[in-house]
Amino acid sequence: MPWSLQEVSQHSDSKSCWVIIDKKVYDVTNFLQEHPGGSSIILKYAGRDATSAYEPIHPSDALEKNLEPSQHLGPLDNEAAHALTKAEALKKKTKDEIRSEQAMNKRPPLNRIISLADIEAIILELRYWAWAYYCSAADDEISMQENARAFNRFFFNARVMRPVSKCDPSTKILGFETTLPIFVSGAALAKLGHPLGEVNITKGCAPSKIIQMVSSNASLSYAEIAAASSPSQTLFFQLYKHKDDATALKRIREVEQLGYKAIFLTVDAIVPSNRERDVRSPWVLDDQETGIKVYNDGEGAADSDPGLGVAGALIVNDDRDMTWEKTIPWLRSVTKLPIVIKGIQCVEDAILAAEANVDGILLSNHGGRQLEYALPPLEVLYRLRMQQQPIFNKLEVYIDGGVRRGTDVVKAVCLGATAVGLGRPFLYAQSAYGEVGVRKLISILDREIVTAMRLMGVAKIAELTPDMVERICSHYYPGEV
Amino acid sequence: MPWSLQEVSQHSDSKSCWVIIDKKVYDVTNFLQEHPGGSSIILKYAGRDATSAYEPIHPSDALEKNLEPSQHLGPLDNEAAHALTKAEALKKKTKDEIRSEQAMNKRPPLNRIISLADIEAIILELRYWAWAYYCSAADDEISMQENARAFNRFFFNARVMRPVSKCDPSTKILGFETTLPIFVSGAALAKLGHPLGEVNITKGCAPSKIIQMVSSNASLSYAEIAAASSPSQTLFFQLYKHKDDATALKRIREVEQLGYKAIFLTVDAIVPSNRERDVRSPWVLDDQETGIKVYNDGEGAADSDPGLGVAGALIVNDDRDMTWEKTIPWLRSVTKLPIVIKGIQCVEDAILAAEANVDGILLSNHGGRQLEYALPPLEVLYRLRMQQQPIFNKLEVYIDGGVRRGTDVVKAVCLGATAVGLGRPFLYAQSAYGEVGVRKLISILDREIVTAMRLMGVAKIAELTPDMVERICSHYYPGEV
Amino acid sequence: MPWSLQEVSQHSDSKSCWVIIDKKVYDVTNFLQEHPGGSSIILKYAGRDATSAYEPIHPSDALEKNLEPSQHLGPLDNEAAHALTKAEALKKKTKDEIRSEQAMNKRPPLNRIISLADIEAIILELRYWAWAYYCSAADDEISMQENARAFNRFFFNARVMRPVSKCDPSTKILGFETTLPIFVSGAALAKLGHPLGEVNITKGCAPSKIIQMVSSNASLSYAEIAAASSPSQTLFFQLYKHKDDATALKRIREVEQLGYKAIFLTVDAIVPSNRERDVRSPWVLDDQETGIKVYNDGEGAADSDPGLGVAGALIVNDDRDMTWEKTIPWLRSVTKLPIVIKGIQCVEDAILAAEANVDGILLSNHGGRQLEYALPPLEVLYRLRMQQQPIFNKLEVYIDGGVRRGTDVVKAVCLGATAVGLGRPFLYAQSAYGEVGVRKLISILDREIVTAMRLMGVAKIAELTPDMVERICSHYYPGEV
Amino acid sequence: MPWSLQEVSQHSDSKSCWVIIDKKVYDVTNFLQEHPGGSSIILKYAGRDATSAYEPIHPSDALEKNLEPSQHLGPLDNEAAHALTKAEALKKKTKDEIRSEQAMNKRPPLNRIISLADIEAIILELRYWAWAYYCSAADDEISMQENARAFNRFFFNARVMRPVSKCDPSTKILGFETTLPIFVSGAALAKLGHPLGEVNITKGCAPSKIIQMVSSNASLSYAEIAAASSPSQTLFFQLYKHKDDATALKRIREVEQLGYKAIFLTVDAIVPSNRERDVRSPWVLDDQETGIKVYNDGEGAADSDPGLGVAGALIVNDDRDMTWEKTIPWLRSVTKLPIVIKGIQCVEDAILAAEANVDGILLSNHGGRQLEYALPPLEVLYRLRMQQQPIFNKLEVYIDGGVRRGTDVVKAVCLGATAVGLGRPFLYAQSAYGEVGVRKLISILDREIVTAMRLMGVAKIAELTPDMVERICSHYYPGEV
Repeated sequence: MPWSLQEVSQHSDSKSCWVIIDKKVYDVTNFLQEHPGGSSIILKYAGRDATSAYEPIHPSDALEKNLEPSQHLGPLDNEAAHALTKAEALKKKTKDEIRSEQAMNKRPPLNRIISLADIEAIILELRYWAWAYYCSAADDEISMQENARAFNRFFFNARVMRPVSKCDPSTKILGFETTLPIFVSGAALAKLGHPLGEVNITKGCAPSKIIQMVSSNASLSYAEIAAASSPSQTLFFQLYKHKDDATALKRIREVEQLGYKAIFLTVDAIVPSNRERDVRSPWVLDDQETGIKVYNDGEGAADSDPGLGVAGALIVNDDRDMTWEKTIPWLRSVTKLPIVIKGIQCVEDAILAAEANVDGILLSNHGGRQLEYALPPLEVLYRLRMQQQPIFNKLEVYIDGGVRRGTDVVKAVCLGATAVGLGRPFLYAQSAYGEVGVRKLISILDREIVTAMRLMGVAKIAELTPDMVERICSHYYPGEV
Repeated sequence: MPWSLQEVSQHSDSKSCWVIIDKKVYDVTNFLQEHPGGSSIILKYAGRDATSAYEPIHPSDALEKNLEPSQHLGPLDNEAAHALTKAEALKKKTKDEIRSEQAMNKRPPLNRIISLADIEAIILELRYWAWAYYCSAADDEISMQENARAFNRFFFNARVMRPVSKCDPSTKILGFETTLPIFVSGAALAKLGHPLGEVNITKGCAPSKIIQMVSSNASLSYAEIAAASSPSQTLFFQLYKHKDDATALKRIREVEQLGYKAIFLTVDAIVPSNRERDVRSPWVLDDQETGIKVYNDGEGAADSDPGLGVAGALIVNDDRDMTWEKTIPWLRSVTKLPIVIKGIQCVEDAILAAEANVDGILLSNHGGRQLEYALPPLEVLYRLRMQQQPIFNKLEVYIDGGVRRGTDVVKAVCLGATAVGLGRPFLYAQSAYGEVGVRKLISILDREIVTAMRLMGVAKIAELTPDMVERICSHYYPGEV
Repeated sequence: MPWSLQEVSQHSDSKSCWVIIDKKVYDVTNFLQEHPGGSSIILKYAGRDATSAYEPIHPSDALEKNLEPSQHLGPLDNEAAHALTKAEALKKKTKDEIRSEQAMNKRPPLNRIISLADIEAIILELRYWAWAYYCSAADDEISMQENARAFNRFFFNARVMRPVSKCDPSTKILGFETTLPIFVSGAALAKLGHPLGEVNITKGCAPSKIIQMVSSNASLSYAEIAAASSPSQTLFFQLYKHKDDATALKRIREVEQLGYKAIFLTVDAIVPSNRERDVRSPWVLDDQETGIKVYNDGEGAADSDPGLGVAGALIVNDDRDMTWEKTIPWLRSVTKLPIVIKGIQCVEDAILAAEANVDGILLSNHGGRQLEYALPPLEVLYRLRMQQQPIFNKLEVYIDGGVRRGTDVVKAVCLGATAVGLGRPFLYAQSAYGEVGVRKLISILDREIVTAMRLMGVAKIAELTPDMVERICSHYYPGEV
Repeated sequence: MPWSLQEVSQHSDSKSCWVIIDKKVYDVTNFLQEHPGGSSIILKYAGRDATSAYEPIHPSDALEKNLEPSQHLGPLDNEAAHALTKAEALKKKTKDEIRSEQAMNKRPPLNRIISLADIEAIILELRYWAWAYYCSAADDEISMQENARAFNRFFFNARVMRPVSKCDPSTKILGFETTLPIFVSGAALAKLGHPLGEVNITKGCAPSKIIQMVSSNASLSYAEIAAASSPSQTLFFQLYKHKDDATALKRIREVEQLGYKAIFLTVDAIVPSNRERDVRSPWVLDDQETGIKVYNDGEGAADSDPGLGVAGALIVNDDRDMTWEKTIPWLRSVTKLPIVIKGIQCVEDAILAAEANVDGILLSNHGGRQLEYALPPLEVLYRLRMQQQPIFNKLEVYIDGGVRRGTDVVKAVCLGATAVGLGRPFLYAQSAYGEVGVRKLISILDREIVTAMRLMGVAKIAELTPDMVERICSHYYPGEV
């Protein structure tokens, strides 16, 4: 060392596998089997530069956390570094890169963005695989759609002749202040959509004190995100628990020390689900790039596993055997942070969560990305409120999934939610416009929430009550077909 | 004075702001902060002619009512007046003006108009911003659509073998005669759609004694409208109560003296709502005119408030702190006119209105233009009739929103409504065909109402009873997707 | 007499109005005010040949029945007759005639017709006004559509392991035999669709003994239709009762003497309804013929009544003041034929009909052509069966409206209907293929009814019971929008 | 013999009818009247080669089973055989053959197939009549669609915090092992889709021990299919009972001796149904081949029966008079195999089946191919589970129809089904990719079933319980039209 390209290229199989990342050389031979995304994606780059595939997905501390010091082999030599720089410069852009760049240059000016749907419309212009990862949901994406559609069944009993010139939408989540009853729900891989990644959200939330829940699978390190936050800002941590308790504990200790204020334990994504858009993404890109449709190679052709998509790769090492009896007591024993269960999907488990004395539950089906035909969270909230009202005194209840309008937020709060999480919308906002996009998103929701409250005759959050919404369950529409 | 253009042009900022309207000069410097539509729209015309922007929106007495005599600076000099006349003559028509004029010249002849939908189809041909203001509704326009769709759920139990050769659809509203159980619900800015504005409706209603409710935000003065009415004609007044009681009282006194017969106090529009079509209207026009799509100016670009649209500007000074305890007694104390609350949106508030001893309630969600997901008025009427029948003996109940057919009117009357208001349809009729359009609209509804009554075995309004309608609430349609 | 064209042409206004029909001259001056279709349509042909407009609508005995002998002025002279023949030969076909003729020449061969929908598809090729008259329904045609859709809500509880090799779908209506539980429901103006008119249906029904209900407004005389029937065939008469009892009685006596076997008194069409397709038909034809769209002639233009369409014209002299107390006893007193009320639209009137001791009721909303939002007949039947079962022992119950499949027939019979009427389908079948079309229609229904019965484990009509159908009333479809 | 073409050609009518199949000559004169598909299709080939029409539909033992030895007339002579070979080589491909071959060459590679919908999409590329036979269903195909849509109404109450790292989806059907709670439901004529026919399914199921139910109407002989199976593999037999008990018994004895393990007695398809797509198939092909649309030959043209389609021909000799009292005891008396009733369509018949002591019932409406508006099997299962829970202890319950996703299977098992049959999907998989397509289909379902189980917190089949699904029956969707 320093290394030449020729030397590196001799370590190009599973027996000895070196890769170059950012002009440094790493020996990943022993890591191949541990890589959550599988060994084959690494072997594709064995003996050569892997930077472009590595960077958008991994936080900056991933190499440090996962490789022994001895596996950090050191820098390339000057000739090699120069060659890579030149190669990068000569690299022809893909059709997808060109399409995306051109389209992003034609985004509407920010002052013409007046709804979350306006932001979501821009996401189509992202790189295809980013779009596919963000948008995809399980199977036929029915639960994803139903999450949003559930809000359409609830109408308001608006009150008039009440003073609303002063209207205050602020509240507290686990004791932490927020100017609106919303928070950023955990969502991975922000760098896919924008080079600055999760810190766009952090910085965009600072002025309004909207709380950000940071995913275990963030594409920036937890430290980088914490460093980007302002002193008065609250961060929560979305824990994907590793199957090895010690590894999981290391992660908890890290975020405790960085000042994260609560643990949201993810329980609805312990195995990969079937996200077809995500799985198909590489084929779409290949066909688009070559302009050639791949044909069948005959009935007898070897069949290979289509893979799990980006999403599946992230959670292969997570704990699939968590239980109420074992996991919650363990978690209580290792941390003093408030504990929230993220991914409760029915009334029965909400009751168990209350018995387990957790601090909160987030009713969620993972944005429709995990179990297809999981009930929409708003429907679970409605059942919980109608059937188990005392639970709301024992813990805080949140929901996420399908929230796109201020009226959606207000409906959930009427039904007992302390606050409402939004995941994809924040990813979309930072992808489309970076930090200012996040601020814009919050200002739209602020305006919509306050307008809805005032038109309902409500001046503060506590006045939003279950009798103000009505679930309309029966109808008859002539000519529907 | 008289003033030259050059002199006027020196008063072009917020320190000294003069504008020319109809070749007279006004000093609006002190008025800038009071202008309901905000100062920026005025400053756009500071130091120059504002007539074309001013006229379609403001009644003729607006300058008199809002400016001190000393702010009326007097006429332009001859040269200036001549120059403006010439400039007006040379002004190139916008693409939108040309499109609209050409299309309006191809309206169907009036005798081919046989339904309200025929009239509504023509509205697409109006100037874009007029169309956008008239059609727009809150958020995703769901409440607007549901207002109309609610009627589709009610079917008739028609009776046969009853004498109907004589059939009389006339009735009374607050004691005032009408040939049909309908009235013109308050709707602002008729001049946007037709240069003669609200008096088209007044004159069109005269022969049939249909009662017109005039909006506080009419684009003609209350006096002009009263003057256009026939002696036997009844006018009601839709009051947007100013936050200052004295200002509000001045408005009430004015309409009392002009002979208006009832006060409809608007309570569902005390703050601006989110009408996206209206807000986007100027951008659509700009892009259409230039043929250039405006692109984003970068992530860091300054973001500006998109504004409130035409609708929002009209009500920024309205009273946001009205209460049952304070406002109704005050109103009773200042006027002997019958009082109707316009904008009741749930059963609970209908009960409070009855307790407050008002003379009537208009179940309305402002045509879906204010609170998105407010219940359709017909659904509120249905709940009220099923749950609170005695209320119908204490006050008169009306509804508006989504009425497009004689059968719609008949359904509401069956469920207890004294009469049914129509807003947009009257604006559309006068926009498309002026006064004769309004007469045509009424004659269509007359025919449809009488036909429905006869085919239901009913010869007079009092025979329309709740058992004659059935809300069909359950269904199963194969192949619906 | 005989008359020259020149002489006839001098009688061309309402003071003296002569018309030529089939080369004979008639003085219709006194008849102008009595003409159900209004005087203006006659005056359009005053002083000249009216044959082409007259023939498709009027039965052959219309002139004889409506004009005094003295008003039959006698034949044209030879020269005039020759001139008309020549003019007819030279007459240029309209675009609509050409379109229709060409399309009709491309009908599928009859052996490729396997469903009623196949027949209905051909109707689009008829002359436009025939199509518009047949297809049109009230207002937005919602009741028409709902008539058909109501059948979609009923599913079968099919039984297995029952012997069905022998399956007999025959039954009796008012004691008269029929091979299937269906009949031809009254439908006017068959000549619009086919030059031979109603006798196509009569002859087509003969082999299968399907009973034909002949409309008062048939385009052939009642005698012609009776003459075309076979000795073993049953005809019923659909009575539109004239407001003058004596005139009505004359009509009853005529059909009694011709051997018609029952009176179906029409009670749901006593005033014209709003059939927009029918009303618009002449404008569509005019625009199509000239290729010029008619524009508006200004706001002040005279407005004229759009007319009632073909449908409205037929019933202007009908009795609008029939009552249970007066009309039924009168009818019983003048005829011994069984009496059926056609047009019962709710349970309450079915009860009154039973109390009035009529022999049957036909639940019908006139194919959705009269009161918009009248309940679908199948829904009325369902309510009647669930709520008033004993009524089925007091009178026979039929339905019509929306029947298009053998399963539709079977569902109605399960719910207690003695038989099911079809109107439009028979008009369509005779329009498309004449008499053989009617036979084909019947053979399709025969096959479909027998197949459904067998697959339900049923061998005869009496085994079809209410428990074999289930109304499915609730559902939840993800992704419906 | 051997025979010349000229000699054969002299036997070309119903008096003496010879046909050539695979270069052998057969005298089918006496068989004409017995042929289930009718005599006319045979007479079309009388006196000449019938191989191409015969082969895709008939199993190899059909001639042996149906013709007397004396009717096997022996081989063609060499010249004739040579002539047929040459003719075959020269035969021009039809447009349909060309289209299908080209399209099949562009099938996606198997590793891009990730859902059953991906496979179904390829079926459009089959020969038209194969596609039409496979896809067609009764009347308007509503029951077929509803079968699938019924699954959409059931949502999951997913449980979390339960150990699922080990998840076992295996179970037993009638005591026979299967790795998944699914089986191949009987479906005829696999050779239409793929030249190797049903054995593709047999071999594809072997590795996963998925049980195949073989249809009486398989296009391979029962012996060929049995021979293709592996020793550890289970085959069931779908019995279409011949109206002649002795003939039926011969069929039962044959499959008993071949080692088939259960009899599924088909009771929902005892008469042909109305499958319009199937019936129309030859006309579509004719028009497509000639490029000429056939026109009507006049009203008076002779009408001929459109035929029954492929489907109807298969069952003309089946027993239409089976009863619980007669048929089940007879079947018990002749075989010791377990008996399952295939085609139960309502709760009442499920009770009768339990009383008849059969071993199982398959809730099925024949994939929507028989009685239109038969209830979806999942709905029958739901009613049975809610109303007649003890029945599940007396016999095994299966369903088929509309299953396309692992979640569909899981829902049915939650509601009490022992296993779920799939018919069309297996036909589609073998048509598109042969044996490997079948393996792919099973591996997709395996993955989807296990993923759904794990995400529901379930580790084995017995843990899937009724409380884990919720039928959502009421809703309100704004803007549905």
